[in-house]
Amino acid sequence: MRFKKRGASGKLCLRRTHIPMIRSTSWTSVQFRSTHGTNSGSSSFSIRSHTCGELRSTHVGEVVTLCGWVQYQRHGMFVILRDYSGLTQVLIPEDESRIKLKKTFCELPLESVVKVKGKVKRRPAGQENKEMPTGEIEVCAETAEVLNKSKKLPFEIKDFTKKAESLRMQYRYLDLRSSQMQYNLRLRSQIVMKIREYLTNIHGFVDVETPTLFKRTPGGAKEFLVPSREPGRFYCLPQSPQQFKQLLMVAGIDRYFQVARCYRDEGSKPDRQPEFTQVDIEMSFVNQAGIQALIEGLIQHFWPNELRSISTPFPIMTYEEAMSVFGVDKPDVRFGMQLVNISEVFSSIEVEFLRDIVHRPGGCVQAIRVPGGTRHLKNKDLESLKHLAKIHFNQTVNVVVLKDDGTWRSSIAKLLPDSAKQHLLQLTAAKPGDVLILASGLLQDVRSLLGKLRLQCVQLLEDKGMIVRDPSDFHFLWVVDFPLFLPKKEYPAELESAHHPFTAAHPEDLPLLLKEPHKVRSQHFDLVVNGCEVGGGSIRIHDASVQKFVLEKILKEDSSLLSHLLEALDSGAPPHGGIALGLDRLLSIIVGASSIRDVIAFPKSFRGHDLMSGAPDFISEDELRPYHVCVKWPVQEGKEKQELDLTKNSALDS
Amino acid sequence: MRFKKRGASGKLCLRRTHIPMIRSTSWTSVQFRSTHGTNSGSSSFSIRSHTCGELRSTHVGEVVTLCGWVQYQRHGMFVILRDYSGLTQVLIPEDESRIKLKKTFCELPLESVVKVKGKVKRRPAGQENKEMPTGEIEVCAETAEVLNKSKKLPFEIKDFTKKAESLRMQYRYLDLRSSQMQYNLRLRSQIVMKIREYLTNIHGFVDVETPTLFKRTPGGAKEFLVPSREPGRFYCLPQSPQQFKQLLMVAGIDRYFQVARCYRDEGSKPDRQPEFTQVDIEMSFVNQAGIQALIEGLIQHFWPNELRSISTPFPIMTYEEAMSVFGVDKPDVRFGMQLVNISEVFSSIEVEFLRDIVHRPGGCVQAIRVPGGTRHLKNKDLESLKHLAKIHFNQTVNVVVLKDDGTWRSSIAKLLPDSAKQHLLQLTAAKPGDVLILASGLLQDVRSLLGKLRLQCVQLLEDKGMIVRDPSDFHFLWVVDFPLFLPKKEYPAELESAHHPFTAAHPEDLPLLLKEPHKVRSQHFDLVVNGCEVGGGSIRIHDASVQKFVLEKILKEDSSLLSHLLEALDSGAPPHGGIALGLDRLLSIIVGASSIRDVIAFPKSFRGHDLMSGAPDFISEDELRPYHVCVKWPVQEGKEKQELDLTKNSALDS
Repeated sequence: MRFKKRGASGKLCLRRTHIPMIRSTSWTSVQFRSTHGTNSGSSSFSIRSHTCGELRSTHVGEVVTLCGWVQYQRHGMFVILRDYSGLTQVLIPEDESRIKLKKTFCELPLESVVKVKGKVKRRPAGQENKEMPTGEIEVCAETAEVLNKSKKLPFEIKDFTKKAESLRMQYRYLDLRSSQMQYNLRLRSQIVMKIREYLTNIHGFVDVETPTLFKRTPGGAKEFLVPSREPGRFYCLPQSPQQFKQLLMVAGIDRYFQVARCYRDEGSKPDRQPEFTQVDIEMSFVNQAGIQALIEGLIQHFWPNELRSISTPFPIMTYEEAMSVFGVDKPDVRFGMQLVNISEVFSSIEVEFLRDIVHRPGGCVQAIRVPGGTRHLKNKDLESLKHLAKIHFNQTVNVVVLKDDGTWRSSIAKLLPDSAKQHLLQLTAAKPGDVLILASGLLQDVRSLLGKLRLQCVQLLEDKGMIVRDPSDFHFLWVVDFPLFLPKKEYPAELESAHHPFTAAHPEDLPLLLKEPHKVRSQHFDLVVNGCEVGGGSIRIHDASVQKFVLEKILKEDSSLLSHLLEALDSGAPPHGGIALGLDRLLSIIVGASSIRDVIAFPKSFRGHDLMSGAPDFISEDELRPYHVCVKWPVQEGKEKQELDLTKNSALDS
Repeated sequence: MRFKKRGASGKLCLRRTHIPMIRSTSWTSVQFRSTHGTNSGSSSFSIRSHTCGELRSTHVGEVVTLCGWVQYQRHGMFVILRDYSGLTQVLIPEDESRIKLKKTFCELPLESVVKVKGKVKRRPAGQENKEMPTGEIEVCAETAEVLNKSKKLPFEIKDFTKKAESLRMQYRYLDLRSSQMQYNLRLRSQIVMKIREYLTNIHGFVDVETPTLFKRTPGGAKEFLVPSREPGRFYCLPQSPQQFKQLLMVAGIDRYFQVARCYRDEGSKPDRQPEFTQVDIEMSFVNQAGIQALIEGLIQHFWPNELRSISTPFPIMTYEEAMSVFGVDKPDVRFGMQLVNISEVFSSIEVEFLRDIVHRPGGCVQAIRVPGGTRHLKNKDLESLKHLAKIHFNQTVNVVVLKDDGTWRSSIAKLLPDSAKQHLLQLTAAKPGDVLILASGLLQDVRSLLGKLRLQCVQLLEDKGMIVRDPSDFHFLWVVDFPLFLPKKEYPAELESAHHPFTAAHPEDLPLLLKEPHKVRSQHFDLVVNGCEVGGGSIRIHDASVQKFVLEKILKEDSSLLSHLLEALDSGAPPHGGIALGLDRLLSIIVGASSIRDVIAFPKSFRGHDLMSGAPDFISEDELRPYHVCVKWPVQEGKEKQELDLTKNSALDS
């Protein structure tokens, strides 16, 4: 048996060739390849013959070469080799003359990389491992080579090892060795490949790459900037290829898609990434139904076999229905606890503050019912719900606990006559053992609050071990008929686009565009699964004059920033529409990850840091000079530093 | 017949659905789709039934719906509709009652977008157009609709229209309608798809997306910067995913690829783009031969059928051979005119300045022979070659014109004895009618100069109509055994990486690494086709101590900037290597484009501008504030502006 420590690059057998001094057409090249080189498969062109996960009893008798990481050693006889595909047991033969070599090999630090050549043997009867796909065989080593010795690592590569996420991120190259992360990244690659096959091979889409160094879009406050070498001029990293996909339709590309890198500078929002990926799609000569059917087929096409199947078409819900029934525009429809309007109970009774609310324009009282809530929700839980309402919504909620004996425990119990109680029970279908949560106020506030409390309740129940939402169930649905414009948060008298300024109005509402734009529904639609928005699409405005009207008259934007797009719409733009799917979010739901960071190879921390390399990092003034920018240190970081900086600048400028 | 101008969004038939107030599992959705919706093909989910290029005589009798652009009108009877797939002739029926509608339709501005429904009819005998794939049929319009009227455009959408490139770029959405650009972008999409299929489906590669907001690499002077919201900290846009691909190998991904967006800030270099795309590949447990065989298979796999086929394996040439024979490391081997060393002719003769050169260390005299050059190269041409040598290389070349009668026309003719002349003719195999170009000096200077003049000669010959290089011939070859380090241009006593600091040394040269690093060959290799480098790969250093030695002792870099990579190499890094193919360059060669801009949907101008949108653009101070940067206006742009700027800054800072 031969054991040797290989150097940095190993011994290579280069292909040799004869280069005569004549025209190349007559060249011949004599080759010598040292690879095992089958023509396909996961070991093609490799120095290994097989991966560590593929040997079975059918391979018994074959001489194989494996490369892998030392997962563990057993009994001073076995080394368990690992690669992404699995584990193989390697037997180090008992042989007096090789004791030292064997010792070296068996004492190698875990995670060292080795190459082993040997014969596949059936394991002795009774020693098979049925839980290991390669458990019927072992490889009896003939030669072996240490390719790279590992130092002691900061954590073990075991799937069940719980590690702090910051540690996982700092040593991401170790974290990715876990079978869960290998599965996530490999599934992501497969799904993206199926998406591409569906779009290009089946439906004639063209994969077009669009620039990421682009121009600031009007109101694009979340776009990263990239200084150019021209003083004062900046590129920006766009939030999506929206303008380009529309321009491609004007260009007659007809069907475009791209697995597109997008950028959004949102500071420190949890579970967002400064760069993320969307499956970006645009079609000419299509309507909403066409895009929706395309996407339903797409998701069917890539849906992993190992998951519970989904059926198409997906249900459709209007925005108004979603808001009224679930209090949110991305409803989780896997469970009930829907919002019930109970205003009529209070319209004529003595509870003054509720009655006043009901009679105010836009006022209402609504409730959600937690079935069997009395058994699971303790006082502490109910207080936490009230607290949430107070802190995040500045609202007061009333809780009614319906005891098993039919009596009420609630601060409003004594204020309500029996008839009102009966009425309320009837409207909410509440039974003894249930909990009712009541909110009152302006319709939109009540909906948002109860929508949030509904999700909070189910979280509380599940934290206590109830299974309310089946995690293996995937409920896709479309939400349609969104409003086209919303009042600006800071200046409610002004309107802003609910999604983006290129969204077309609902054809039935076109007449409202001139006079009552706030009432116009849009041709925007969202794809929602299990309470998460995973895609948004729309039919776009393809008429230049309509686009100009929306930009200038309704949104009060400077349309000259988009003059290229307006001109394009005037140059024979076809009717078109499209959609973007949030690939990271969709994948995290499919693999059941709690964060999109678990489906991204090298994610940033929630503060936007790469904990492995330390990006973003400080840059010297010398390196900033070609871009004609300098750092403006905040005053609070130290007056001295700032002054120093200004001094330097003056010196450079003069 | 119905003609109507459709509004911004057209009339849509939305799918309707019943959303009961119960759990979604029992939902059903009743749908009404207005699309023609076949389940596959290029008109699936569309309001058209067919594209404008697909109707044949087999469709005669079918009622079809076409959508397209008005290409032209003929005889007030025909409208020729175009989409990406081709042209179809639409017949407007002669009908007294429809004269006005017909007039409208036939007077529509070219490039307006229309929808036509009608029956496919065979063209009357004798009126077929054999040059048009749809030339056997026409569509007899029954209804038609103007979807969008076009204004007068800045240029016609005709392939043969020659336009200034700046105009093409400004109206890129019109330029892309040309059949050449449609072909280029669609071929690009298809080739990329085949690359993906080959790598993932046949060879088990994993498509992994790596970040583009990363950390400055040591010496990464060409990296764009992206200010973060943390004062003084910047991301950078990496030139390639080099570090990430190696980290993925350490992570056990085994086989990685990505069609990766890369960034390089090279200012205004011709035919470079600030963002470009590379097919990025990395494998564990592989050697050079394995990577080369993988790529040969890849190119065979995607090679377009319509091009002359290529054969594999590709020839291999060492860097030393390429430099000595072709004077360049990316030789165009489609023609001869190779460099010939003629130093021995001058070592003992009277031409003092040449003899001295030959006897100087590293000095030489070399020649290239232009067969039949006397017929085609005029005095003006030969002067231009001398001029080029003077301007770009500061060297003098001697030209020998061998007249048909065997006499020499050359300034050195009378200095050479006949024996030397004979010797020279023998070494260069020159015959009457040929031209010889002689250069003398240091070996590396002579090679570079003659390598350049060789290409310049062939360009001159081709400009005069000779076909020296067949544009339909594709000569791929590998150039191997590059030097690992090169002297720095500005400080020749110091070394820098010839490619990048992660390249492994040639195993035979490992002993030289300590004492004579400038002599070490690398395991880097280039893929060259027709004189263009289209890919570069290498085996990487996988030993942390070797990597640290190279960074610190040879390159004198601060290795702490790469501490994450060094640590990774110490954590069980497998031997690995990879390659990156320049997709834009490769495609431009395949489609025969003179610039990579012709295979990119929205390229930047050579100054890095997007001529369509006007990026990069000025950004207000307000928008810069969150990033803690300000513009440092150059002094020469006007002292006043700068002062104004500084005043503003002080006001903001205080």
